[in-house]
Amino acid sequence: MGLGGYAERVAEAMQQCERAKVAGLISGTPEKLVKWGQKYNIPESSRYNYDNFDAIKDNPDIDAIYVITPNALHHDQVIRSARAGKHVICEKPLAISAKEGQEMLDACNNAGVKLLVGYRMRFEPNTLEVVRLRNAGAFGRLKFFQGQCGFVAGDPKQWRLNKALAGGGSLMDIGIYAINGARYMLGEDPVWVSAQETKTDPVKFKEGVDETIQFELGFPSGAVASCLSSYNISHLDRFFLTGEKGFAEMWPSTGYGPIKGRTHQGDLGKPHTVHQRTQMDEMAAIIFDNNTPTLPVDGLTALQDLQIIEAIYRSCASGKREPIKLS
Amino acid sequence: MGLGGYAERVAEAMQQCERAKVAGLISGTPEKLVKWGQKYNIPESSRYNYDNFDAIKDNPDIDAIYVITPNALHHDQVIRSARAGKHVICEKPLAISAKEGQEMLDACNNAGVKLLVGYRMRFEPNTLEVVRLRNAGAFGRLKFFQGQCGFVAGDPKQWRLNKALAGGGSLMDIGIYAINGARYMLGEDPVWVSAQETKTDPVKFKEGVDETIQFELGFPSGAVASCLSSYNISHLDRFFLTGEKGFAEMWPSTGYGPIKGRTHQGDLGKPHTVHQRTQMDEMAAIIFDNNTPTLPVDGLTALQDLQIIEAIYRSCASGKREPIKLS
Repeated sequence: MGLGGYAERVAEAMQQCERAKVAGLISGTPEKLVKWGQKYNIPESSRYNYDNFDAIKDNPDIDAIYVITPNALHHDQVIRSARAGKHVICEKPLAISAKEGQEMLDACNNAGVKLLVGYRMRFEPNTLEVVRLRNAGAFGRLKFFQGQCGFVAGDPKQWRLNKALAGGGSLMDIGIYAINGARYMLGEDPVWVSAQETKTDPVKFKEGVDETIQFELGFPSGAVASCLSSYNISHLDRFFLTGEKGFAEMWPSTGYGPIKGRTHQGDLGKPHTVHQRTQMDEMAAIIFDNNTPTLPVDGLTALQDLQIIEAIYRSCASGKREPIKLS
Repeated sequence: MGLGGYAERVAEAMQQCERAKVAGLISGTPEKLVKWGQKYNIPESSRYNYDNFDAIKDNPDIDAIYVITPNALHHDQVIRSARAGKHVICEKPLAISAKEGQEMLDACNNAGVKLLVGYRMRFEPNTLEVVRLRNAGAFGRLKFFQGQCGFVAGDPKQWRLNKALAGGGSLMDIGIYAINGARYMLGEDPVWVSAQETKTDPVKFKEGVDETIQFELGFPSGAVASCLSSYNISHLDRFFLTGEKGFAEMWPSTGYGPIKGRTHQGDLGKPHTVHQRTQMDEMAAIIFDNNTPTLPVDGLTALQDLQIIEAIYRSCASGKREPIKLS
């Protein structure tokens, strides 16, 4: 659902998948439905628009709907997809508020369908190797995580810079990687946040669209994280994890790859994979085999990320450290 | 003055200096005066203790006194040195409060002697090369600085973990490097700070002795900095500077070396130097030739660092972003 640039990337990657393929299309642009339909050999009976896609309910060729649309649309689209009885994969962020996210979880639970979130990094080999090493004690007791995520946002007219569609700014889109990283690298969930917002270009980054946010997280173990989210700083995309016995660095850490990972013991040497291909095969295994992934990609995890995002925005507004309470 | 471990390092380095040498000794330990006196060929008439060192006033062989003692002692010792008519080099931090620092500046001004601070990194070749590149516009408009400074403090009985002698904890000793780095890498002074303190070991790090502080600084240009100061996290010591056109990384960035620096264009390839040797020769040039160093090492710069430190401690206490006002 949503045949934009990222959907193209996912569909391309799925051509190499073993267990997932494009079986249907949903778009508001008739020309895209024709073009994609021809390219992926999708019969007209499996091409839908935003008015009629509820009819997917009666289409046995489609097992799951991957929602790749602007953030503010996820809520209704995921709920409608669930009501059509289809499993749902939703791009991140799950929604533009925790309240919406909870409603989406409820709808999927009530419909008996799975809700997964497009957290592709959670299947990436370097990432999983760092997590494996951490679990094996390679870094000792963990002390600190740093996640620096940002790039210079181009086109000022893109939906990501439109509060109504994006629900926020850099934090919703790119800062969420640092939140994710903090949680899966440290292996625990934060209990407080302190955040500062800086805006240097209020024309491009309007009210409610954050340009740069620095945020610090505290964890029950005493570990801390320093994170950066920006639509106006480049040369970032670095994760760093350090503990009593050693460290891991990933730089780049979340781009489309190749991801480069190393520890105090040397390069991880993991091969590059097309993230979206791995993601889709792994998600097929979750959906069809009830597989449990090493790092969760379920709706609850994504809802918790929204709760952290809301705490970050609260801290930016209050100028104070704010507690984080997760579902 | 003060013949401890760091003084040994400085004295060793000065044996390779061209313009500085050990010409006198001040210590509270008679055995050290004998041992050092023999090693550096210092006549008994140039060996002093803390009771009688004011008599240095009448010793024409001594041009300057390098104060290398616990932080809380700097104030009185620098003022006495100034009153003895000698130039003073004081180890960092200059003092344990901005009020003390101001009194020390005043005393040196009144005595007509120079006050320099042992900021050795301000003469380090990689550091200066990054500053040169920045000034040449290699990074474009600057956006972000990260300074991560910390190590695991050993002996729990050392004076650095004693509030009365250290005046604080990690921030006074190691976090100050990140403050320095933020200022000289970005080339401007911060106007706000938000800081969070985390303590996991209240036995080792007692009341008033900070174990770990994360602090974020904002600058007039809109650039921001994320810094970490810790006595309980290792594998740090990294500076990172990024701007519109490129970045610089120094890792390690402030240890005794070798410092490793690189930019988006590759390794800086600067040779390792013994920091203290360069520092002492350069400081001799400041004292004797009124040389102006690329990066200032004067008392005012160090007083401003204390004002930033006090703002950081204020923010830790208030839980809020605090403004920074510098002399």
